[in-house]
Amino acid sequence: MDIFMNYLKGVELKITKIKKIEIQSDNLEKIVRFATEWILENTNFRKPFFVEDAGLFINALKGFPGPYSHYVYKTIGINGILKLMNNVTDRSALFQSIIAFWDGNKITTFKGQINGNISLEPRGTFGFGFDPIFIPQNATKTFAEMTIQEKNLHSHRAKSAKKLVKYIAKNLFSLESTDPTS
Amino acid sequence: MDIFMNYLKGVELKITKIKKIEIQSDNLEKIVRFATEWILENTNFRKPFFVEDAGLFINALKGFPGPYSHYVYKTIGINGILKLMNNVTDRSALFQSIIAFWDGNKITTFKGQINGNISLEPRGTFGFGFDPIFIPQNATKTFAEMTIQEKNLHSHRAKSAKKLVKYIAKNLFSLESTDPTS
Repeated sequence: MDIFMNYLKGVELKITKIKKIEIQSDNLEKIVRFATEWILENTNFRKPFFVEDAGLFINALKGFPGPYSHYVYKTIGINGILKLMNNVTDRSALFQSIIAFWDGNKITTFKGQINGNISLEPRGTFGFGFDPIFIPQNATKTFAEMTIQEKNLHSHRAKSAKKLVKYIAKNLFSLESTDPTS
Repeated sequence: MDIFMNYLKGVELKITKIKKIEIQSDNLEKIVRFATEWILENTNFRKPFFVEDAGLFINALKGFPGPYSHYVYKTIGINGILKLMNNVTDRSALFQSIIAFWDGNKITTFKGQINGNISLEPRGTFGFGFDPIFIPQNATKTFAEMTIQEKNLHSHRAKSAKKLVKYIAKNLFSLESTDPTS
């Protein structure tokens, strides 16, 4: 989230430890929206905040692991995904990131998405999760072979974060005309 | 749930369509407990009710698919599980069912569990979900090769339901001494 620091100089970004409820759903937007509503209904937290969730959706596996990517990573892991993709021709997949942002008045969601393919073997040591087996479109490296700067040119999370920054600039700081992130 | 009809003759069992929240958790008990609390906090429903959830936990896959069994069944399915278990020696697994019951005063949970093994190929047409690849201990058939009566001798869900019936008989009807389900 360096993008906040570089652009919205007046904004302080903090990670807050509050209880979060993650529901089971095929739909990341429903998950982050429910989590945001739950915090508003069940805590006294009222500063602007956002909740982000992301997932890897593999077409040949009907979207699996999707919203359960973290659990799947912890259990069957990268090797499990590669085993499931063994002899599968269609290796297309996408990473999606959804942010739900409470601006003090209402909740708005922002989506970032990147299409790509599942590699034949894990490559690279940067990043986390399924980064070593995801090659974004128009790239030859996996996410785990990219520096954070390179990854930000492609990544789903960079895209959703840019939309959030743009929204904050426009709606909370009236910075529309000088927005460099679009 | 024939067991209700056969034993607790005064009790009427109905399936109720109310919004249910299923959280993401490795722990089925947390999932059904949260769902029950959420219904009490967010609806006017106050009759005694229960919520049940179940999952297949495969040891060699670190408990996968666990609480996400339904989603995993819908996406990678039985063939996906068998592919993940290809060349895996330890085929041990367990089915778990947890019931959270609101008796009008408090929530109590009941656990049913059956150990078994993942078969080498799907067998049988009864039941649902992963029944065709689960062979309970002390059996040679998969759940999907068993009639409902046979399956009830083994199944996790029959075990949790029996505990619930016993609890209702004892606490709501004072039927302790004549309980035939223990």
